[in-house]
Amino acid sequence: MEEKYVREITAKSEDFSQWYVDVIVKGELADYSPVRGCMVIRPYGYALWENMQKLLDRRFKETGHKNAYFPVFIPESLLRKEAEHVEGFAPEVAWVTHGGQEELSERLAVRPTSETIICSMYSKWIKSWRDLPVLINQWCNVVRWEKSTKPFLRTAEFLWQEGHTAHRTEEEAEEETLRMLEVYRDFVETELALPVIKGRKSENEKFAGALRTYTIEAMMSDGKALQAGTSHNLGQHFSKVFDIKFLDQDGKLKYVWQTSWGVSTRLIGAVIMTHGDNRGLRLPPRVAPIQVIIVPIFGQQREEILAKSKAVYQLLKENFRVEIDDRDEYTPGWKFNEWEMKGVPVRLEIGPRDLAQNQMLLVRRDTGEKIQVKESDLENYLNKLLEDIQTNMFKQAKKFMNDNTNTATNFEELKELLINKRGFVKAMWCGDSECEKKVKEETTATLRCIPFEQEEISDRCAICGKEAKKMVYFAKSY
Amino acid sequence: MEEKYVREITAKSEDFSQWYVDVIVKGELADYSPVRGCMVIRPYGYALWENMQKLLDRRFKETGHKNAYFPVFIPESLLRKEAEHVEGFAPEVAWVTHGGQEELSERLAVRPTSETIICSMYSKWIKSWRDLPVLINQWCNVVRWEKSTKPFLRTAEFLWQEGHTAHRTEEEAEEETLRMLEVYRDFVETELALPVIKGRKSENEKFAGALRTYTIEAMMSDGKALQAGTSHNLGQHFSKVFDIKFLDQDGKLKYVWQTSWGVSTRLIGAVIMTHGDNRGLRLPPRVAPIQVIIVPIFGQQREEILAKSKAVYQLLKENFRVEIDDRDEYTPGWKFNEWEMKGVPVRLEIGPRDLAQNQMLLVRRDTGEKIQVKESDLENYLNKLLEDIQTNMFKQAKKFMNDNTNTATNFEELKELLINKRGFVKAMWCGDSECEKKVKEETTATLRCIPFEQEEISDRCAICGKEAKKMVYFAKSY
Ligand SMILES: [Zn+2]
Ligand SMILES: [Zn+2]
Repeated sequence: MEEKYVREITAKSEDFSQWYVDVIVKGELADYSPVRGCMVIRPYGYALWENMQKLLDRRFKETGHKNAYFPVFIPESLLRKEAEHVEGFAPEVAWVTHGGQEELSERLAVRPTSETIICSMYSKWIKSWRDLPVLINQWCNVVRWEKSTKPFLRTAEFLWQEGHTAHRTEEEAEEETLRMLEVYRDFVETELALPVIKGRKSENEKFAGALRTYTIEAMMSDGKALQAGTSHNLGQHFSKVFDIKFLDQDGKLKYVWQTSWGVSTRLIGAVIMTHGDNRGLRLPPRVAPIQVIIVPIFGQQREEILAKSKAVYQLLKENFRVEIDDRDEYTPGWKFNEWEMKGVPVRLEIGPRDLAQNQMLLVRRDTGEKIQVKESDLENYLNKLLEDIQTNMFKQAKKFMNDNTNTATNFEELKELLINKRGFVKAMWCGDSECEKKVKEETTATLRCIPFEQEEISDRCAICGKEAKKMVYFAKSY
Repeated sequence: MEEKYVREITAKSEDFSQWYVDVIVKGELADYSPVRGCMVIRPYGYALWENMQKLLDRRFKETGHKNAYFPVFIPESLLRKEAEHVEGFAPEVAWVTHGGQEELSERLAVRPTSETIICSMYSKWIKSWRDLPVLINQWCNVVRWEKSTKPFLRTAEFLWQEGHTAHRTEEEAEEETLRMLEVYRDFVETELALPVIKGRKSENEKFAGALRTYTIEAMMSDGKALQAGTSHNLGQHFSKVFDIKFLDQDGKLKYVWQTSWGVSTRLIGAVIMTHGDNRGLRLPPRVAPIQVIIVPIFGQQREEILAKSKAVYQLLKENFRVEIDDRDEYTPGWKFNEWEMKGVPVRLEIGPRDLAQNQMLLVRRDTGEKIQVKESDLENYLNKLLEDIQTNMFKQAKKFMNDNTNTATNFEELKELLINKRGFVKAMWCGDSECEKKVKEETTATLRCIPFEQEEISDRCAICGKEAKKMVYFAKSY
């Protein structure tokens, strides 16, 4: 029974890409829609996103941010105001040209990101140093007309949050940029159990219109990098173009310093690809839509076992996200596989013997370990167990990341590692974007980031041999 | 000082429409954007929406619904599948015709509502009676290309939730339709303090593609009606067109029965227009972004009073949405007006005398009443006070609705009341849509609903004099 079910999803080791799509579609996280490149996020996937939203939103509010909502449409002229920005986004914009029967006098972009529309409002709202800082976040949908798409990772439409702040000084903007990067790191590592490398993007890889882009980079279990969140110091690029000036305390008119930062439903893709295994999803307890699934094993005492299962459900539902699978049309074995595939962290079985002995069996999704627990200890034990699973999943992912991070000191090594071995490669870099481009051309890997945590591997650039400035990470990426 | 500030917003009694825009813009709930007909919801307005969302979402989940997310784009062919539906929505659709540089082979509608795209997925997901009911809700933005717009009430883009459910039988669908109408009534009356009339829409006024539409109708303080929420029994109109069939327990293939229901950011408009007064907004405590505003009255003891204000803030912030206005650049009087305009239910003043006597002054926004409270009683008293304000605001609105509801027994009376008096008019109706149209043509008022709570005013239709079937409400509306 078990084998049959597992066979329904492609083995991860066999075809990672097909496995990824299988667990999403069969695990009912998302589905393909009749609109090219757009997916439907199904209730199970959306509940995961809601849990992520709550934990992030709380962090945003704790750091003084407020939510707001800006129009989904951006007039073409507004989008075109900042040159670098429009160059970065124009090729993937969806354009509205008609409203009802009428052709519009100006095309409207469906927002690919909201810097321009938000800046146009900030220039109206910000007058004095007393109005600063402005700390606004928006939860919304954005559209980027991508050629090739993949659920959660790259879709024509996706959900995200975008923070947009304005400050008095460059230092304050830089502090904010780094504060929000740290909020992302903390969120992603603590709640999603995804270890990340914190660092800065190179000039080539930074956001279109930013002064500096910071990133957290995660490693998927095929060794590829995924940019899990970015935080941009926009400098005064936008404030000069959109004329966002304030009267400072010294009586002078100055341009504000800005930041923007965002994470998206891509993070769901990262959770899947980091933690999943041949049996399907493994969801971190802190964000799992269902933390505990109760499966009654009926046998002869159907009524008593069902009653006990429901009593346990009632007990647990105050403090845990718990569900009970009392469907008659499926065997326990089928259910075990189903809930394993859906990544539920703990399965709770109640059978005739458990009933007699006032105990139940807990099965961990992360390790498969089975634990007999007395009913009286259940809640305490579960609390600890879920924490333990969370910690263990982080450790496993961290170990995988370490095991798959290699070091190169010259170009041959770097090429060899990037082409033939999965994972990240650490190497010294002279800072020249020509060296960066050479790596990309010959290996398809990119410079993921200049990590805050520097090591001195050598004093020479691994690509050109000139004097090295920084240690950087290279990797193929999503 | 006070008078000056109040003068900044047009008096409600003088120009209701201008007052409405003034309180929105000056109260910083929303602002006009550079996109025609689209508004920006500012943090204060968005916090109100977030509070409303939380209270509604909890109710949806308690009644078994789950959230999901469907694409913002709907291919034109899909939108055109159900004839009545497309006729209702096509005139106000925004069309995407280009993705990046390329012209699309098929135009995409920016969703005006999601029945069609959701039905296309339901036909894929629903196979057996075991899959039913499907109870899904979506929080999202929708676009309707309206000619004339007004913040919150009628904008090209707005935020809403749309529930879409599928059921085995007509009875179950009807039960769901009425259940969600009751959820709306309870939410709107309990949380927003808006009294409503529950009833059914006439054939003329029902949703494009529905079998039956139910509504809750609120009365704004200019006497006009506002449709505060609708719940539609879609029958099998969509399931037949989108081929949503299931194998029933009896082995027969059957079409599902469907419902849809929604409320939107329009409700913010309803809150403003029902509760506001000449001084500005009055927000119901249960959804007010700030429930208590602390205004220190400095005098000679600046430091002590500031310290006490902060201590009170720390104490209250665990259980109340509280803020402190310790800005030095404004006088207390200016602040009083500011927070009254913003509709904060309770102002808490701490001055030198209060400090000496361990007390503070509370000022109710709804009645202007001032109450001295001992510091030791503060939390208990505030809890009761906020509840009392909530109840009182509902009672005031209910009284206004009753006072402005009149009865007509013949067409002359009906016309006279609808043209010259504000409010609702109850009248008997024969059920003929010609009579309904005649009222609209001669008075611009529409048949708001056939209320569940019927009265027998007479046995004759007030318009044509033929035999009456139902008592109905007529009113001008937003
Ligand atoms: Zn180099
Ligand atoms: Zn009649």
